[in-house]
Amino acid sequence: MSRAAQRRDALRATAEASGLDAVLVTNLLNVRYLTGFTGSNGALLVRTDGADLFGTDGRYTTQAQTQVPDVELLVDRATVSGLARAAVRRGVGRLGYESHDLTVDGFAALEKVLADAADGPGPELVSVRRAVEAQRAIKDDDEVDALRRACAVADQALAELAAEGALRPGRTELQVGRELDARMLVLGAEAPSFETIVATGANSAIPHHRPDGTELRDGDFLKLDFGATVDGYHSDMTRTLVLGHAADWQREIYELVAASQAAGRAALAVGTDVVAVDSAAREVIAAAGHGDHFTHGLGHGVGLEIHEAPGIGPLGAGTLAAGMAVTVEPGVYLPGHGGVRIEDTLIVTDDAPELLTLTSKELLVL
Amino acid sequence: MSRAAQRRDALRATAEASGLDAVLVTNLLNVRYLTGFTGSNGALLVRTDGADLFGTDGRYTTQAQTQVPDVELLVDRATVSGLARAAVRRGVGRLGYESHDLTVDGFAALEKVLADAADGPGPELVSVRRAVEAQRAIKDDDEVDALRRACAVADQALAELAAEGALRPGRTELQVGRELDARMLVLGAEAPSFETIVATGANSAIPHHRPDGTELRDGDFLKLDFGATVDGYHSDMTRTLVLGHAADWQREIYELVAASQAAGRAALAVGTDVVAVDSAAREVIAAAGHGDHFTHGLGHGVGLEIHEAPGIGPLGAGTLAAGMAVTVEPGVYLPGHGGVRIEDTLIVTDDAPELLTLTSKELLVL
Repeated sequence: MSRAAQRRDALRATAEASGLDAVLVTNLLNVRYLTGFTGSNGALLVRTDGADLFGTDGRYTTQAQTQVPDVELLVDRATVSGLARAAVRRGVGRLGYESHDLTVDGFAALEKVLADAADGPGPELVSVRRAVEAQRAIKDDDEVDALRRACAVADQALAELAAEGALRPGRTELQVGRELDARMLVLGAEAPSFETIVATGANSAIPHHRPDGTELRDGDFLKLDFGATVDGYHSDMTRTLVLGHAADWQREIYELVAASQAAGRAALAVGTDVVAVDSAAREVIAAAGHGDHFTHGLGHGVGLEIHEAPGIGPLGAGTLAAGMAVTVEPGVYLPGHGGVRIEDTLIVTDDAPELLTLTSKELLVL
Repeated sequence: MSRAAQRRDALRATAEASGLDAVLVTNLLNVRYLTGFTGSNGALLVRTDGADLFGTDGRYTTQAQTQVPDVELLVDRATVSGLARAAVRRGVGRLGYESHDLTVDGFAALEKVLADAADGPGPELVSVRRAVEAQRAIKDDDEVDALRRACAVADQALAELAAEGALRPGRTELQVGRELDARMLVLGAEAPSFETIVATGANSAIPHHRPDGTELRDGDFLKLDFGATVDGYHSDMTRTLVLGHAADWQREIYELVAASQAAGRAALAVGTDVVAVDSAAREVIAAAGHGDHFTHGLGHGVGLEIHEAPGIGPLGAGTLAAGMAVTVEPGVYLPGHGGVRIEDTLIVTDDAPELLTLTSKELLVL
C-alpha cells in the first residue's frame, strides 16, 4: 500500500469516527499529502466505504495517472463541483469539508451544486477543520527522508558559498541571497523554502530583514536564514557568522544564543508541552538580562509548509509527539547594533531529537 | 501621490459607487497591490472618507513603516480582527469584503468580532467579489516596467545558457530546468514565475510536462516554458528549439505554430473580444488540420499572479483594454512524437501591442 493510501486510510478513520460518509479535501497541500499529486488544481473525495475519487482538469490527466494511479480519476474543469456531484450520485449523506480552506464563494457554489444534484436537500455539510493538518504534524518515514534531503541541500549550498569566498566584505546582502538561492536550485531544490534572509551589520538586529544593497563589512555579523524545498518539503536553518574578526560583545551574545538553542533542543521530548520547550530556551536568555531582546517564538513545525503545526512559543498549545518536525530558533537582537539567531530543523523521536541541519554551530569567523 | 495611493483611491471610488463605507482587503496580493507591502501577513481597510488603515503583526513593524509610509499602521497579531474592530470604532455601517478570498472560518470569525465590537448588530458585510482583481487587470506604468524587467531577466537567462552550451545532447531536462531557474535568480529574479517546463523529444507533446531525467538528444525538440518574478510581477515565455538538425515535420509544425502565434498577436487590440483573439490564432492551426492538437486556451493575463484576468480562450468573456498584460501561446502537440509551443508576454496598447519577451521566434537549431 502506498504512503498516500495509508494517509487516506487515516483520514477515513477520522471521518468514520465523526459519523461522516465522506470528506471533500480542497486544500491543495492536503490533496498532495493524501495523493502525491503536485499539479496546481486538484481536489479529493475520501469516502468511508473506501471508494475515493480524485479530481483535476484536463491539463493534468497524464500527470494524475502517473502520480495518483491508485485512486479513481475524475477529469472536470470545475474540480470541486465534479466531486460534489459524484458524492451525491454515490449517496453521501454527511459530507465533511475544510472550512479553513474553502472560501465564502466556494462554499456557496458547493451548496448550490449539492442542492441541484440532489434535486432536493443535498448532503449535510460538516466542517472537519484542520483534520488533515493534524495528521501532517506527525511525519512518516518518507516525509522525514524528504526533510533530511532538503536540509542537506541547504547545508551544502552554504558550505560551497563559504568555501568559494562568496561571503566576503564588499558583496551585498542581495548578491549573497541570490547566490544562496541559485546554489540550492543547482543542488536539487525545487525552490527556496521562503524569501531568504541575509542581514549584516545593524540589519542583523531586524529579525525578518529583507536583503538589500547593504554591503558586508569587516567585523560585522552576517545572519543567514534560509532553506530548500525538496519534494515539496521545506528545510529551515539560520546561522550567524562574523566577518574578519569577532568583538567581545559579539562572542558574548553568540554564546548566549547558542546556549539557549542547546537548551531548546534538549527540551524536545515526546510529551513535553510546547510552552515548556519555549521556556527552556527563553529562560537562558532572560537570565542573562536579554529577555526583551528575544522578541519571537522559539520555533514551529515544518513540512509541506514552512510554518505548520506545532507552534512552539509562549502562546502555543499541545505537547510534542514522535515524528514531529520542528525548528528551534532563539535570537537576541540589539536594535541598531546587531543580532544573532541560531536555528535548526529537528525531528522529535522517542530518544534524542534527530538533527537535520548539520552545519556547525560554532561561531564561524570568515 | 504614490502609485499605491492612486490604486486605493480607485478602489475607494468603486466602494462609494456601491454604497459602502469601507472595504476590508484580505487577499495578500491585493494588499500588496494597494500598499506596496511584501510581507506574509497583512490586511487593509480602505474607507470612503479617506482614513485608511493597514494592519500587520509585530514581525513586520519596521517593514510596514518603510513600505507603507502613507497609511496609518495597526500592529496586531490578529490582523483582520484588529481592522474589523477599528472599522466598528470608526462607525462603518456597510463593510465590503472579499468573498473569493475569505474562508468560511475567516468569515465566521469576522462576523463574531464585528458583533462583539459593536455590542449589537455589527456592520453589514457585503461582498465586493474581485473588485481589486478587476483593477489589477489594467497595468499602470510601474507595473508594465516591472513586467518588462521580469521578461528581460528570462530573455537574458536563456541567451546565456544557449551561449554557454548548456542546452546540448546528454544533459537532462531537470539539469536544464535548474540551471535556467538558478540563472534567473542570479540575474535579479526573486523566484521563477512557476515550475519551469523543460520537455524534450516525445515529452514536448505533453503541454505541461514536468522536467525529469530524460536526456536531450540530437534531432529532438526542446520546449522551454519559464519566467522570472521581479518586484512581484511574473514574466511568461515559451520557446521551442531543435537540437542538432530539424526534420521536415518539425519545421512544418514550427512554422504553423509561429504563424498562429503571429495571428494571435496581431489580433491584440483594444475592444477586441477575447474569444475573437483566441479564434484568430486557432483558425490558422485548424485550417492546417491540426485543430485537435491545440488543446488549451490561447493565453491569459499576467501580473502579480502568473494566471490572472483576462483569460483568452474559447470560453473567455470580455474585451481587451489598453494596459492589459497578456500571453499569446498557441501550441501543436503530436502525442508520442513531439510538440511546439511559442509564447510571448505583451501589453495591449492603443496602437500595436508592446512585445516584452524579446527572444527570437525564428526556429533555433542548437
